[in-house]
Amino acid sequence: MDISYALGMAGTVAFAVTAVLAVIPRGIDLFGAIVMGIITAVGGGTIRDLILDVPVFWASDLNYIWVALVSSIIAFYGNRLMSRKNIYSLMLYLDGAGVALFVIQGTEKAIGYDFGMPVGPVILGIITAIGGGLTRDILAGNPTLLMKKELYAVPVTFGAILYMLLLKLFPESSGLIGLVCVLITFLIRAAAIHWKLTVPSWMLLKLEKNNIIN
Amino acid sequence: MDISYALGMAGTVAFAVTAVLAVIPRGIDLFGAIVMGIITAVGGGTIRDLILDVPVFWASDLNYIWVALVSSIIAFYGNRLMSRKNIYSLMLYLDGAGVALFVIQGTEKAIGYDFGMPVGPVILGIITAIGGGLTRDILAGNPTLLMKKELYAVPVTFGAILYMLLLKLFPESSGLIGLVCVLITFLIRAAAIHWKLTVPSWMLLKLEKNNIIN
Amino acid sequence: MDISYALGMAGTVAFAVTAVLAVIPRGIDLFGAIVMGIITAVGGGTIRDLILDVPVFWASDLNYIWVALVSSIIAFYGNRLMSRKNIYSLMLYLDGAGVALFVIQGTEKAIGYDFGMPVGPVILGIITAIGGGLTRDILAGNPTLLMKKELYAVPVTFGAILYMLLLKLFPESSGLIGLVCVLITFLIRAAAIHWKLTVPSWMLLKLEKNNIIN
Repeated sequence: MDISYALGMAGTVAFAVTAVLAVIPRGIDLFGAIVMGIITAVGGGTIRDLILDVPVFWASDLNYIWVALVSSIIAFYGNRLMSRKNIYSLMLYLDGAGVALFVIQGTEKAIGYDFGMPVGPVILGIITAIGGGLTRDILAGNPTLLMKKELYAVPVTFGAILYMLLLKLFPESSGLIGLVCVLITFLIRAAAIHWKLTVPSWMLLKLEKNNIIN
Repeated sequence: MDISYALGMAGTVAFAVTAVLAVIPRGIDLFGAIVMGIITAVGGGTIRDLILDVPVFWASDLNYIWVALVSSIIAFYGNRLMSRKNIYSLMLYLDGAGVALFVIQGTEKAIGYDFGMPVGPVILGIITAIGGGLTRDILAGNPTLLMKKELYAVPVTFGAILYMLLLKLFPESSGLIGLVCVLITFLIRAAAIHWKLTVPSWMLLKLEKNNIIN
Repeated sequence: MDISYALGMAGTVAFAVTAVLAVIPRGIDLFGAIVMGIITAVGGGTIRDLILDVPVFWASDLNYIWVALVSSIIAFYGNRLMSRKNIYSLMLYLDGAGVALFVIQGTEKAIGYDFGMPVGPVILGIITAIGGGLTRDILAGNPTLLMKKELYAVPVTFGAILYMLLLKLFPESSGLIGLVCVLITFLIRAAAIHWKLTVPSWMLLKLEKNNIIN
């Protein structure tokens, strides 16, 4: 079991747990919680594989499903423990590690299939990282992260683009570059969690009353 | 026309009709009603086939589309009749027969492709049975069944797991086992409809005020 | 660059711009706006290609992504200009040209793969034209167009069916027929925009108080 696989499993745990914690206040039952946990953990990669037209990754390695399943059950029954400030904080950072890892993995996988270079891998990397969370929010009736000011999708996108650029410059060192990009993506996301960063103001509009569409 | 095919068509009718009845109070027009009816009837199987990477089932047998289309139109214009207590009750039970049949069919189809054994077929069976209804609820802006206490997805899941277990024990009698599992799944669902059963209390959380996430 | 390609690009611009204008009042940031613009522009064709089981169209022609990306950024920062009555009106008509073109393109592509004749191409044509907009509305938490009385999906469906019928009658003149159907679809949609047409009353139900489901 290499380190990338171990990180992938840690990300799966974090995705499932944070998903369950996010839907519990909506009064979900155990079954719904498990579905939400699994979808959040493997949904993004599944959409990526459908678009790549390759077999979905979890069909040949059910560990992803089992880990998401068990994590969801533990999060469901252990929610009071899990939602204690420290534990939840840990989960947020783990989720940050998850998206950092998944975006680079997704980008790398798309490059491996020479998919729509050079933009396709960035798009599929983003989908891998945030597709599961988007699906969960839609199923739960929560606002999706696209409608929030949180600095979540931006570091993900930055990581994917950085990986493409560095790979272009140093095609020989893909392994090292991958590691560096996961790390940088995670650090930006961690900074956003720690300092509650929002997207920079040039990415926001000052809406005024003369906006005619609503 | 064998019995499984006839049951599949009955399920298609029930899925389309209950879908249309569910969205009519939202003020939908005929076109929207037809789209909702067709999506509910064939949506789950379509997602299953995309994940299996096989041709979508209705492309080679348009009867599924025609039956859903005609059922939707009848349900739309006949909604006052259809929503009379008895008829609607009948539709609920037919819908129960539909999910019972579709979950076993979906599980069986995934087994046939040796997809992610032994967990993959259960997942695809569930998707076949409830994927269309989830898509309909999302498009209509209704809360999805995952957020409800109704005993709907649980019998479906139980049926798929039971089918996998029995097939492991008695690999020679797949036909009979399929029939038995459809029946058992339907009976549990029918009991849930009749006695308005909700998920058992061990599958629910008592939410308390000290829950920090909302 | 032929005329169909040019029209496709114009439709892409219109889809991206109207998408961004539609989500800006919800307080979206630049990143979210770009995602919404791209998804609206290429989402429908992507779902079509997944169901057809062919490579997604934008992977081999990234111009669709670039055009949607740049259009989204311009719409985001230029939103005050764009939402001026005249410009927004122009965008609505361009969007109408977009759906008219995409529905016929989608229908034609499905025919080329002999997909579920004769109903399959109509379904995939509709999905091509409105799938992106539906996905955008779901991600933004807006009511989908299926729940509105606007005459939007109906002309699209009419165009696809007309194309199938005319192609059956005059199989030799597919190019001309395509052009005519795009034009007719656009004209109906443009009339709907200009006169604010809603679906005809026979497609609506008079809901009464004795409706038992809600």
